Amino acid sequence: MINISIIGASGYTGLELVKILLNHPEFKINYMANSEGGVKLSELHPSMNSVFEIDINKLNIDNVVKYSDLAFLALPHKTSMAIAKELLARGVKVVDLSADYRLKLETYEKYYTSHMDKDNLKQSVYGLPEFFREDIKNSNLVANPGCYPTASLLALLPFTKYLDESLPIFIDAKSGLSGAGKKCNDLTQFVSVNENIITYNPMNHRHEPEIKEKLSILKEKNFSINFIPQLIPVTRGELVNCYGTIKDEFININPIEILRDIYKDEKFIRIKENAVDIKSTSGTNFCDIFAKVNDKAIFINASIDNLLRGASSQAVVNANIMYGFEENLGIPIISYVP
Amino acid sequence: MINISIIGASGYTGLELVKILLNHPEFKINYMANSEGGVKLSELHPSMNSVFEIDINKLNIDNVVKYSDLAFLALPHKTSMAIAKELLARGVKVVDLSADYRLKLETYEKYYTSHMDKDNLKQSVYGLPEFFREDIKNSNLVANPGCYPTASLLALLPFTKYLDESLPIFIDAKSGLSGAGKKCNDLTQFVSVNENIITYNPMNHRHEPEIKEKLSILKEKNFSINFIPQLIPVTRGELVNCYGTIKDEFININPIEILRDIYKDEKFIRIKENAVDIKSTSGTNFCDIFAKVNDKAIFINASIDNLLRGASSQAVVNANIMYGFEENLGIPIISYVP
Amino acid sequence: MINISIIGASGYTGLELVKILLNHPEFKINYMANSEGGVKLSELHPSMNSVFEIDINKLNIDNVVKYSDLAFLALPHKTSMAIAKELLARGVKVVDLSADYRLKLETYEKYYTSHMDKDNLKQSVYGLPEFFREDIKNSNLVANPGCYPTASLLALLPFTKYLDESLPIFIDAKSGLSGAGKKCNDLTQFVSVNENIITYNPMNHRHEPEIKEKLSILKEKNFSINFIPQLIPVTRGELVNCYGTIKDEFININPIEILRDIYKDEKFIRIKENAVDIKSTSGTNFCDIFAKVNDKAIFINASIDNLLRGASSQAVVNANIMYGFEENLGIPIISYVP
Amino acid sequence: MINISIIGASGYTGLELVKILLNHPEFKINYMANSEGGVKLSELHPSMNSVFEIDINKLNIDNVVKYSDLAFLALPHKTSMAIAKELLARGVKVVDLSADYRLKLETYEKYYTSHMDKDNLKQSVYGLPEFFREDIKNSNLVANPGCYPTASLLALLPFTKYLDESLPIFIDAKSGLSGAGKKCNDLTQFVSVNENIITYNPMNHRHEPEIKEKLSILKEKNFSINFIPQLIPVTRGELVNCYGTIKDEFININPIEILRDIYKDEKFIRIKENAVDIKSTSGTNFCDIFAKVNDKAIFINASIDNLLRGASSQAVVNANIMYGFEENLGIPIISYVP
Repeated sequence: MINISIIGASGYTGLELVKILLNHPEFKINYMANSEGGVKLSELHPSMNSVFEIDINKLNIDNVVKYSDLAFLALPHKTSMAIAKELLARGVKVVDLSADYRLKLETYEKYYTSHMDKDNLKQSVYGLPEFFREDIKNSNLVANPGCYPTASLLALLPFTKYLDESLPIFIDAKSGLSGAGKKCNDLTQFVSVNENIITYNPMNHRHEPEIKEKLSILKEKNFSINFIPQLIPVTRGELVNCYGTIKDEFININPIEILRDIYKDEKFIRIKENAVDIKSTSGTNFCDIFAKVNDKAIFINASIDNLLRGASSQAVVNANIMYGFEENLGIPIISYVP
Repeated sequence: MINISIIGASGYTGLELVKILLNHPEFKINYMANSEGGVKLSELHPSMNSVFEIDINKLNIDNVVKYSDLAFLALPHKTSMAIAKELLARGVKVVDLSADYRLKLETYEKYYTSHMDKDNLKQSVYGLPEFFREDIKNSNLVANPGCYPTASLLALLPFTKYLDESLPIFIDAKSGLSGAGKKCNDLTQFVSVNENIITYNPMNHRHEPEIKEKLSILKEKNFSINFIPQLIPVTRGELVNCYGTIKDEFININPIEILRDIYKDEKFIRIKENAVDIKSTSGTNFCDIFAKVNDKAIFINASIDNLLRGASSQAVVNANIMYGFEENLGIPIISYVP
Repeated sequence: MINISIIGASGYTGLELVKILLNHPEFKINYMANSEGGVKLSELHPSMNSVFEIDINKLNIDNVVKYSDLAFLALPHKTSMAIAKELLARGVKVVDLSADYRLKLETYEKYYTSHMDKDNLKQSVYGLPEFFREDIKNSNLVANPGCYPTASLLALLPFTKYLDESLPIFIDAKSGLSGAGKKCNDLTQFVSVNENIITYNPMNHRHEPEIKEKLSILKEKNFSINFIPQLIPVTRGELVNCYGTIKDEFININPIEILRDIYKDEKFIRIKENAVDIKSTSGTNFCDIFAKVNDKAIFINASIDNLLRGASSQAVVNANIMYGFEENLGIPIISYVP
Repeated sequence: MINISIIGASGYTGLELVKILLNHPEFKINYMANSEGGVKLSELHPSMNSVFEIDINKLNIDNVVKYSDLAFLALPHKTSMAIAKELLARGVKVVDLSADYRLKLETYEKYYTSHMDKDNLKQSVYGLPEFFREDIKNSNLVANPGCYPTASLLALLPFTKYLDESLPIFIDAKSGLSGAGKKCNDLTQFVSVNENIITYNPMNHRHEPEIKEKLSILKEKNFSINFIPQLIPVTRGELVNCYGTIKDEFININPIEILRDIYKDEKFIRIKENAVDIKSTSGTNFCDIFAKVNDKAIFINASIDNLLRGASSQAVVNANIMYGFEENLGIPIISYVP
């Protein structure tokens, strides 16, 4: 068994990591920590009562090193890198769920803060398996993608060849409230969100540069990404609708065929013949994708579970690849429907 | 007092008409009917108990003529026109909430059915007050717009001059379940919709030609409209996000100023400095609009209450105009927030 | 016009008072305040944009006295009485929405804090119109009941004669989240409450002694009240299910007839022939009541809008009575259905 | 591997059986059927796409016998018994999720219909493991309890000794919409249920005699059960609040200790120190229970997942017992939280 630590036990992604790893035949949760410690898992997450118990320690790097081979970091952006730096120096593999190792240095420093670990940043791998599988295999440090970028990239990458690079792409994205984190604020209050749709940071969200950068790295194209995130009154689930203009010479493409071809061997992509919904992927690592064209207009929609494929289950898939296991080992595929 | 009849008493729009007209100082609900009759309003709509009672008659044209000066038709598409034809011939003014008089003959016959009243269709007026006010004043027959076209047109019309006509426009629209009607089906079942987003008829919805046609009539431009409607798990409310490409020479427009200028005297349009939400317009006839540009990309979002501004309150505004009353007479403006 | 001030402008009940008073023919909102002031109403409550604007002042007693004849206090418990005391001394009538004047001194001091205004407390009137109408008429100080006590008392009072006083009464109460107030906490976070039912303070809620005391005062009976409040994932609405044991000699009562008899002239009570629901009373001052017996068991259920009949609209009804107006003047009766 | 058939593939309980059995090391889904057949599982349940596929056959008893050792019947009440009768005659073990074998003959015939299989009814076992374990072990026919009776009995049985049999017990029960079945009707329409609480069949629900009968059989006491079921706007989950009067001599019981003692070895009962919620048991076979006394009043609340512990997972637990497996083999315990 590979010993695993989960750093950042308090949030939803930490809980989802536990839920997955409990059923993983090769990974063993051996150490958990948050900033305060001194509490048991079932106190932080009462649903774990009679299911699994473990101490939540106050983070101690020596103990992480002692007790684990790989650490999942489920920490706020900007706080991960200090910890990852030490762990990597001492031989612990890292899968980081924050943004700290996702972006090129300039992009990161423009949207987040000064980077504290430029060396490791240089060799970190972006953890989107369908497109970075080989790099992930050989890596000790995987930067788990943001939830919106995961769905947006899986939707757009098959079509970059056909899209007019000089024209804007629009991403109309909707997420459930678990994507807004556990802290109480106006956005997360029931009365604010219930029976409502709340748009936040339109065309001004940090996932926009992340999507843009990966499209550029993978396809050497520079798209204008216009990202509009909205919160809808559900707990989990994420839907991205991508809109773009097709170049004149490609007006007759069959988008479903293109998707089927690009993703033909991918276990975690389901190509749908109708528009996707979010319930069907909830509880799973699947990304459901559908696309339709009308003359020059293309509409691609993709659905994922924001906490799973958008964070925790994708992180475990990355760990599976890092250790040479079957990619789907221990990965949830049975949705919560109904 | 002007005598009013409401034909089509069973649905949500019929109920909303009653709720508005009860407080209208000039309109009196004098006759109500549906296809079966023989029931009281409070049996169809129990919330009206101890509030207002009236018989629901089996539709009889003679009685409509006898008892009313103006009739609101809240009937299914294709069934309105037979009734409107007779009423108009006998001097009753008509505000029709269906699609039967909204479109040019060719468009209607392509998307609905053969038209039974081509004469009246020729002179019917599209009931979007901000743009057809003068025509409504002089009309005996007003075709109330569809809910999605109302919000989409109010969002797009100020910007048609700046939009590149050769490039697609996308409308990502979300509506609450009251927009799907009262009949039970897979789309309206709680378990299907709860915690979900359901996309139906993407780029294949009958509101698409309606939006296209009105943009063409009003602005003499032929836009490619790509309309994606989704149901979200709320009861009422509608949000449309419109995406388009701005022509190169207009890259520096200030969309908020443009909106404020076009709508400066409009009582029922509120221009917002942040993206709109749907709770704020629920229970009102307001349309809230926001817009943002990023280089060539423009995002406009508009929110309405689908049953009110999207149907019943806009219908009463049209009736106010037809009778020369203040447009806001008896029109609801206090939202249901919280 | 009677000049009104609303003290405590930030919360939901403050907003609901504004929404009601805007349409009140005799009451004029003349002064509004909260603890900080320096803001406009539409900044605190954006839904009031283009509807009604007024300055929110930092509370100044002199100004309240100068600008109003009656003040609605929508303040937290324990903070109202200091303000009420001054206002009453200076001739301003007060309707207090907090608990500060609802209870006998001993009860208040046991469950809340030391009372700062014992003199006024002695002559305050409990603002449940169906049972204290005459006292309200002659009062300058009305203590608006708590939301759960309103529904529970209206449900139970008709039956106290038949209930076995030596046996427990149970009140299984459900409320929407607007009843939990505007402050962010674990109970009000969307992810905690959505798809959930949260029971808080079972048999330990301050509404329990309030219900008990009023039953005792009105009926001279000492019931054991066991009150179980729950939050359900809706924004507004409240349902109380009351369970009790009927004394042997009354086993054949017809509870619907009893309700109809007791409440026969009451404009705001609707006796139902089936169990009540909460949507039908939302947006209104109605209390819907149903009851059923089975041998010695009685089940009474009552539904109100927790913000309206449970607070703000009942407060305006009380003010109507204090000024000798028709009780239903300006009171909302049209529900938000659908 | 034991071959399993699932008869009644279309509903939610059928789907939940598949979801559980896919991960069961000893049971193999070998045959599935509904009344029409000719379709694949993923057509009935699209979430099963890329997860598991199997033909849904038109029910053929010969094939059930040929292909399975045990059949789960997820059929409507009254239709199960004809099928069970044949299967049992031919040596197939049956776990029936309907009411057809739950009750004594007289009770069944009073509330359902004439029984078609009185012989098997006589020896059927009620599938509530905590109380009928030994009988289940030795049975070929287990009648899976109704969802409300499961939670109500687990809540009440520990306390029957202390409850005054001559006084009514009240069960205020709430369930999510998945408990109302898949058919479209007024109760299951989104707009009817959203933001609402709907009480149906108060003190007149078929689960009432089931609860009453089992209390009588197990404890030889004849309680007056007054059962009030309500639908709340969630998809899954069930909460029952039981209210009763304690006999004078038992006023000082410690209900938490009593629960801990009765259920001390039970893997699927969690005794809580605070009132329970429904999210924590969703996705699991757990029943969470809490209780509190106040003088003579007792309040017990129990939460289960209505589709799992209330139907499908309890059915698989019963099958585990029938085959002598560990009771928790393949049984879901990780909740859907968040």
